[in-house]
Amino acid sequence: MTPEDVARRCAETMSERDHVAIDLDMEIVEIGPGQARLRMRVTDTMVNGHGLAHGGYVFLLADSAFAYACNTHDRVTVAAAADITFVAPAYTGDLLEALATERTRFGRSGLYDVTVRRVPDGAVIAEFRGTSRSRNDRLLNPPEHDA
Amino acid sequence: MTPEDVARRCAETMSERDHVAIDLDMEIVEIGPGQARLRMRVTDTMVNGHGLAHGGYVFLLADSAFAYACNTHDRVTVAAAADITFVAPAYTGDLLEALATERTRFGRSGLYDVTVRRVPDGAVIAEFRGTSRSRNDRLLNPPEHDA
Amino acid sequence: MTPEDVARRCAETMSERDHVAIDLDMEIVEIGPGQARLRMRVTDTMVNGHGLAHGGYVFLLADSAFAYACNTHDRVTVAAAADITFVAPAYTGDLLEALATERTRFGRSGLYDVTVRRVPDGAVIAEFRGTSRSRNDRLLNPPEHDA
Amino acid sequence: MTPEDVARRCAETMSERDHVAIDLDMEIVEIGPGQARLRMRVTDTMVNGHGLAHGGYVFLLADSAFAYACNTHDRVTVAAAADITFVAPAYTGDLLEALATERTRFGRSGLYDVTVRRVPDGAVIAEFRGTSRSRNDRLLNPPEHDA
Repeated sequence: MTPEDVARRCAETMSERDHVAIDLDMEIVEIGPGQARLRMRVTDTMVNGHGLAHGGYVFLLADSAFAYACNTHDRVTVAAAADITFVAPAYTGDLLEALATERTRFGRSGLYDVTVRRVPDGAVIAEFRGTSRSRNDRLLNPPEHDA
Repeated sequence: MTPEDVARRCAETMSERDHVAIDLDMEIVEIGPGQARLRMRVTDTMVNGHGLAHGGYVFLLADSAFAYACNTHDRVTVAAAADITFVAPAYTGDLLEALATERTRFGRSGLYDVTVRRVPDGAVIAEFRGTSRSRNDRLLNPPEHDA
Repeated sequence: MTPEDVARRCAETMSERDHVAIDLDMEIVEIGPGQARLRMRVTDTMVNGHGLAHGGYVFLLADSAFAYACNTHDRVTVAAAADITFVAPAYTGDLLEALATERTRFGRSGLYDVTVRRVPDGAVIAEFRGTSRSRNDRLLNPPEHDA
Repeated sequence: MTPEDVARRCAETMSERDHVAIDLDMEIVEIGPGQARLRMRVTDTMVNGHGLAHGGYVFLLADSAFAYACNTHDRVTVAAAADITFVAPAYTGDLLEALATERTRFGRSGLYDVTVRRVPDGAVIAEFRGTSRSRNDRLLNPPEHDA
């Protein structure tokens, strides 16, 4: 398998059990080695006390793109830390797109940048950076898949 | 009104329009000047591809506690940035509690620390720090409340 | 003046009064709109208790590149916050290069990414992200320069 | 030895080889398990292009307090990441004090909060948070000390 194939199959494996993405209607638009592009529409239940999209849901979309991107190398990888800067508000009905790209990997750690933009005008909504930590187990060949 | 009264009424005003807290069944356990304690139970729709509570929902709870805490001074205040460190995983059914406390305020900015623990054993799940930014308008006396 | 000219003159104005850069022998290698490349050699006085370059000096180089980059638009701009991830250790004698690039600007704020690499092998030593805040006053025409 | 004795001896061991602290005239005011208080005076060579103490030196003091605090448990421990928020400017001649306290430890990681204040008025200059990573080797009994 090419790295592109591995990346795609890792994302498929993750997305099957990803109740969050299903529940929030996230769409995986693009997957590549160290990269992921996800979309989510802001709904009525994502609006906070000031009438704006809750920063937590913007984070959630960015964090999901980060999770898919850092799991494209067939190692079970989890988020160790993340930070987010809120650049502009988003509103009910807005379609948001998060593009996660790999910045660097070192030892078991990785650093990923995620930009969240509104579609189709491309306005930046948030900038996110996540630190990942890989474990020894593989994503594609867990015992239950060998049967 | 005492600062405690102001804090409580600010939280009431916010929570009435907080669709996120209602949708996720968050409970406001305690409010004081610069402080907020919120609880949320991890449900099936908050579980990620590795079978653990999605970090995004842990962030969402912490971010909500931060939002309530930084809005206790009767100024409309929004999150400018935040970072989170994931200390231990949480699982479906876990009851999580986020305690937000004010670290410092300067100009229109504020810094808040939020610790997310599992109840009742008190295990730390995540540590969060948020930077807030206040606007000129008040939370308690918007025009529509004067009628 | 072109944006390139403005950027270069802003850097010249800053570097004349930049005692830190002079004291630490930092070299400004390249300046452009929203961008700066600086070099510094790790000396004996920059080594910590474990025999490695003190992270504080790696931060200082990155922070300086950030300062030059965010001051290329002829607005006095200061650092509001920054974070750094230490990727690999540096040692006495190493020549370090920090490249700061502008990620986004919004209102009076800006977000800058800085990568610190060792020269000439290009190994990543640290990744830095800074948030800037601009003031109203200009960098190139302060009153004392009009005389 | 009590934890207090261990902490004090770890700090002594570190400070003997800490060229940075010696060069910048940092003073270790207080050491305890997971805690350190350091002081440094802002000198002419620490002033940036805007006439203010360079944020890099404020970071350096905070980072040093963090390093001493996370090395009080007799494990060689290094900084993995850190973030800083600049609350107020400092000027030449100011005496700064950084107090580092342990927030939480998990696995090989630790989280430390550092507040930098001006002495004697106590004004907050910066808030810092650092993530540490411990190695297997001890600080107090390296082979060369057994001879």
